[in-house]
Amino acid sequence: MTQLETQGLAARNAARVLSVAGTARKNAALEAIAAAIVARQGEILAANAADLEAGKAAGLRPALLDRLALDQGRIAGIVEGVRQVAALPDPIGEVTRMSTRPNGLTIGKRRVPLGVIGIIYEARPNVTVDAAALCLKSGNAVLLRGGKEAFRSNQAFVAVMRDALEGAGLPRDCVALVTDTSRESATELMGLTEYLDVLIPRGGAGLIRSVVENARVPVIETGVGVCHVYVHEGADLDMAARIIHNAKTSRPSVCNAAECLLVDRGIARDFLPMAWQLLQTKDVELRGCPETRAILGDFVKPASEADWDTEFGDYILAVKVVGGFDEATDFIAAHGSGHSEAIVTNDYNAAQRFLDVVDAAAVYVNASTRFTDGFEFGLGAEIGISTQKMHARGPMGLEELTSSKFIIYGTGQVR
Amino acid sequence: MTQLETQGLAARNAARVLSVAGTARKNAALEAIAAAIVARQGEILAANAADLEAGKAAGLRPALLDRLALDQGRIAGIVEGVRQVAALPDPIGEVTRMSTRPNGLTIGKRRVPLGVIGIIYEARPNVTVDAAALCLKSGNAVLLRGGKEAFRSNQAFVAVMRDALEGAGLPRDCVALVTDTSRESATELMGLTEYLDVLIPRGGAGLIRSVVENARVPVIETGVGVCHVYVHEGADLDMAARIIHNAKTSRPSVCNAAECLLVDRGIARDFLPMAWQLLQTKDVELRGCPETRAILGDFVKPASEADWDTEFGDYILAVKVVGGFDEATDFIAAHGSGHSEAIVTNDYNAAQRFLDVVDAAAVYVNASTRFTDGFEFGLGAEIGISTQKMHARGPMGLEELTSSKFIIYGTGQVR
Repeated sequence: MTQLETQGLAARNAARVLSVAGTARKNAALEAIAAAIVARQGEILAANAADLEAGKAAGLRPALLDRLALDQGRIAGIVEGVRQVAALPDPIGEVTRMSTRPNGLTIGKRRVPLGVIGIIYEARPNVTVDAAALCLKSGNAVLLRGGKEAFRSNQAFVAVMRDALEGAGLPRDCVALVTDTSRESATELMGLTEYLDVLIPRGGAGLIRSVVENARVPVIETGVGVCHVYVHEGADLDMAARIIHNAKTSRPSVCNAAECLLVDRGIARDFLPMAWQLLQTKDVELRGCPETRAILGDFVKPASEADWDTEFGDYILAVKVVGGFDEATDFIAAHGSGHSEAIVTNDYNAAQRFLDVVDAAAVYVNASTRFTDGFEFGLGAEIGISTQKMHARGPMGLEELTSSKFIIYGTGQVR
Repeated sequence: MTQLETQGLAARNAARVLSVAGTARKNAALEAIAAAIVARQGEILAANAADLEAGKAAGLRPALLDRLALDQGRIAGIVEGVRQVAALPDPIGEVTRMSTRPNGLTIGKRRVPLGVIGIIYEARPNVTVDAAALCLKSGNAVLLRGGKEAFRSNQAFVAVMRDALEGAGLPRDCVALVTDTSRESATELMGLTEYLDVLIPRGGAGLIRSVVENARVPVIETGVGVCHVYVHEGADLDMAARIIHNAKTSRPSVCNAAECLLVDRGIARDFLPMAWQLLQTKDVELRGCPETRAILGDFVKPASEADWDTEFGDYILAVKVVGGFDEATDFIAAHGSGHSEAIVTNDYNAAQRFLDVVDAAAVYVNASTRFTDGFEFGLGAEIGISTQKMHARGPMGLEELTSSKFIIYGTGQVR
């Protein structure tokens, strides 16, 4: 057995215990983890300092170093996150659709854990604890594979969590870190069908694409967002300007930020200058269609074909004037990534029809796409945002980390 | 574009129309399909006769020829199935969990079609109509790829269905048959990620394994069943004998038939002869552990290691004496396929604990595993039985052919 198979088998065995551990024990383990992280933050910070030093020596970009860095405040935030997960309702055990069939069989659908979840992510040590807490609460064992730049920090966090699990009477192997950070081990993890029930990549487009293309384990695809705001001719133009300004600039690096503005021809001459007045306060670069450039001027760069399909993740916005509702929604069908799409309109029929015809995880009327988020949607937690249609779509909370089984009570029925 | 890509694109466009077609139009199309199959059964039976003739010439086994054959009675059954699907509630459009957030956003989760579904199946022309009807009712376009021995029959059914769709005002391409039946086209279909949302294999273990291993499109794995009946020492032995007899012999070729009998040591000497008395009426071949052979005699063949993991699909039963509940459930965890598992017992704690610890799509107390079926479970229809944990598990009806999207009504909210 390879090292990873050994870890997979251990996780599988731990998952069998965890699946029937019950809410009280799982919550006690989460509380023990929170307390242990507080008590042992010295060793965690020391490991993180070593990661940061190595990262600086390797010439990591400042933004990456910032995501890697921990301090007392960030650790307090991580601990608070664990306690919030402990406070959430336990999704496991709920039975839905229980009924008695004409032959007397009583059949219900019970929510159960998925089993063993693999998480592949970048050098963000907070994800290590966050993902482990969500998996634990939902009764799943977890195999974590974080970016190698955060390896020492992850190792420290996982050591603390495993000790706390043991102290709370649960198997240490409910949480494990893949210690081989080679490219080969990533490939092996993606093929570990015997031990992994699902693999969730959390990170940038490159990481996600690589996992989706190479994994044989079932994957939940997360996060790529080419989101549109469509300003319909029936829009409140002030509201529309505030919405595109927020959707583009409040946090351009995240997947629910807007990348493209579509504007109905009838209002483009009025609206585009209003939108630009707000967008220019954040120095947003516009890449427009010819009509946009004719209205706003040559400071708008010409949009290339590739721009319509790009998640800029930056203060860059593609802008296109369209001939009406059908052209706008056809354009979204052709270029959207199925993440979050918004219309701004006061026209009842346009609003309802947009909700009907646009095929995306979240479809908005008169609100910023930035709300697509587990906390904002009231799920209480988020393991990621699914952009696929199977199993889960949109923000994923604890329920999306579960499966179901039918339970059947009989009195000797045969068929 | 290849022929298959052209079909995929046409299906994708048809799916956009179908997704918002509404219940009345979908039901009218299903009724039109039922009526057209009745009206045009002459051409369908002629095509089927040509398939049968070619099949006989190619030396197809009688069982395969029987599955391939149509007659007026079977066509009436197929038509009745379409009308039953039309009569089922439409799952599309239901909104769950709608609530208003503190910031005034009203957020709901709406059930929507998956999009385009691919079905790969063997030479069973009834599946062509059955699968198309279920996909249509759930708002999905479907690409059908049936076994090549049934090609003429499938082509006749699909031609009739496409004409009926058009007559009912829906795109013909809601239902399409993959006309290239080469091995290469199967491989291409499994990689058609741009146009297919999900691929469902229906058929034997070989077909399913090939699809699961080769597909890059998301797959819903169906059907392999290595199911156990565990007779606990607290069982009513008469009931247990009737249950294993039914689970093994009522239809041994299907996935919910039992393949292995586990018997507690304390009752084995009493129970095994009782079970054999019923099983021998169907000439069941037993393959037993040494204890089983010591009790029943040398007519029981010795079970090989491979027998414990085999879906016999025949009048063959593996039999093992176990040392109690934990050994039985560990054995099921090691050798079961996660399909259907049953305990026979009158012990309350053993029953409840079996439902807790056994990880399978359907877990039974005191009933035959043969009930794992969409109709028996009250789903009204069945596209297959999922043995995976993601998206759907167990019998899949119309709801399992759907996804969801969040719809958000705002009044100008920004974040």
